Amino acid sequence: MELFFVLDLLGTMAFAISGALVGREKRLDLFGILTLAFVTAIGGGTLRDVIIGITPVTWLTDLVYFYTILGSVVGALLFYKYLDYLRISLFLFDTIGLAVFTLIGIEKGMSVGLHPIICVTLGTITACFGGVIRDILSNTIPIILKREIYATACIAGGLVFYALYYLEVDKDLTYIITSLVIIGIRILAVKRAWKLPYSHA
Amino acid sequence: MELFFVLDLLGTMAFAISGALVGREKRLDLFGILTLAFVTAIGGGTLRDVIIGITPVTWLTDLVYFYTILGSVVGALLFYKYLDYLRISLFLFDTIGLAVFTLIGIEKGMSVGLHPIICVTLGTITACFGGVIRDILSNTIPIILKREIYATACIAGGLVFYALYYLEVDKDLTYIITSLVIIGIRILAVKRAWKLPYSHA
Amino acid sequence: MELFFVLDLLGTMAFAISGALVGREKRLDLFGILTLAFVTAIGGGTLRDVIIGITPVTWLTDLVYFYTILGSVVGALLFYKYLDYLRISLFLFDTIGLAVFTLIGIEKGMSVGLHPIICVTLGTITACFGGVIRDILSNTIPIILKREIYATACIAGGLVFYALYYLEVDKDLTYIITSLVIIGIRILAVKRAWKLPYSHA
Repeated sequence: MELFFVLDLLGTMAFAISGALVGREKRLDLFGILTLAFVTAIGGGTLRDVIIGITPVTWLTDLVYFYTILGSVVGALLFYKYLDYLRISLFLFDTIGLAVFTLIGIEKGMSVGLHPIICVTLGTITACFGGVIRDILSNTIPIILKREIYATACIAGGLVFYALYYLEVDKDLTYIITSLVIIGIRILAVKRAWKLPYSHA
Repeated sequence: MELFFVLDLLGTMAFAISGALVGREKRLDLFGILTLAFVTAIGGGTLRDVIIGITPVTWLTDLVYFYTILGSVVGALLFYKYLDYLRISLFLFDTIGLAVFTLIGIEKGMSVGLHPIICVTLGTITACFGGVIRDILSNTIPIILKREIYATACIAGGLVFYALYYLEVDKDLTYIITSLVIIGIRILAVKRAWKLPYSHA
Repeated sequence: MELFFVLDLLGTMAFAISGALVGREKRLDLFGILTLAFVTAIGGGTLRDVIIGITPVTWLTDLVYFYTILGSVVGALLFYKYLDYLRISLFLFDTIGLAVFTLIGIEKGMSVGLHPIICVTLGTITACFGGVIRDILSNTIPIILKREIYATACIAGGLVFYALYYLEVDKDLTYIITSLVIIGIRILAVKRAWKLPYSHA
């Protein structure tokens, strides 16, 4: 699915830019900014592949991720002043990344025959743990552990994915519906300031 | 050994509850609390399996860990108010977990033919690194690096294990004695406020 | 290459001592100091091997690293008072470690047929991520992300390595020149307080 690959790169780009912006805010130097962009974009997928045992992990053998991240950082630094105007597109990219990375994680789990619950977990790890590692490196409690409907959108999307899967819905349609569910929940959560139980923020 | 499996689940439960409690204290939301429970319970074993190369790691293929942790979190949140009364049982569970996880780590190392010193290290990693990752995620210096006789109990237990192993003591007896040594040291350390050298707390 | 092995151990020693010193400063206890020495010395190589899929990772099967680190910690604690006088030698060891670990990382990547850009990345990970994990464990933003020409020396060395490689320069000479480039950049960066763009410190 060509579209899938394009979306994967869009997600990688969005996550890399988000990492670079956090690095800039935290006053890291150029190497620090690059590192944060990398771990945000590939951290989740790397953790997933390592615990499944799919090695070398993807970005070591497919250079397109390396160049995409590098290009995103260069872009983010050059157009830093204008990024405020782009904030909405950035949020959209990040949300697309969330949806696509969840689907990729689920598919990887299925491809090695793991249980649906575990595959949804792997989808969530793929989509969310890059951001967690980014926040650990910049010495803050990961924001998604505190006050965002973020991982929850991935989990909900994963459940919808399996509902459609067992109903034998067409694969492409399944991908599209799952993505829309994740993107929809995420957008609504931000617009309406939805919180999970126990959230104090 | 049926008993061993039951103890493994008790340890998983205790570690999950300890993670959930830290998440509650740190004012994380529901997803954050779940994540902290998971990493505390499976973090050490995951790190051990990944560096040995035993993949997919256990909890990906054996769902009993997933359900045990989920149940522990639900229990911890429902009975949060009463947990103070349970503090002693919790400490006991955690200490049992410490002993069992140390033994599991040693056995895994032996099963791939590693040197005793490395096996004791792997036992200590299994028992202690879930808590270390929990503390990293909640943005504090891991407590066991600062002022607890905790890992030290695992290391001492590991040495006793190998002493008995070379004396060709019966396996079950070896497990029991090693566990009692770890549990005993841990209880005495807390009761008598034992400290390691260089401890400032 | 005998020399290479000796330098590897010197690097391990220097990194272990640097970890032990940070542990002492952060007022960790003996186990904490040991843990910090270990992760600083083997963290980068472990991460590299795990994402490539070379398991069990080296230090699990070759005990010389274990004993080198243990000896370094004992030495660092015994001679703590005199370490100030040794600061220059320590910096030198650490810089040698940086060079050797970069070369080892590049070689490992080449040995499994990875692309030059990825091999340079692996060299940088090997040399730098032990220190990153050390700083995460001691709850500070990793210093090399903020204000040190450190990883940059590894990357520059890696590029020189490949220039010489494609020019078919003799292997030993390539090692020596690459090392001198890394060591030279690092020493000059410290002496002249070079900074990367975006550095605020």
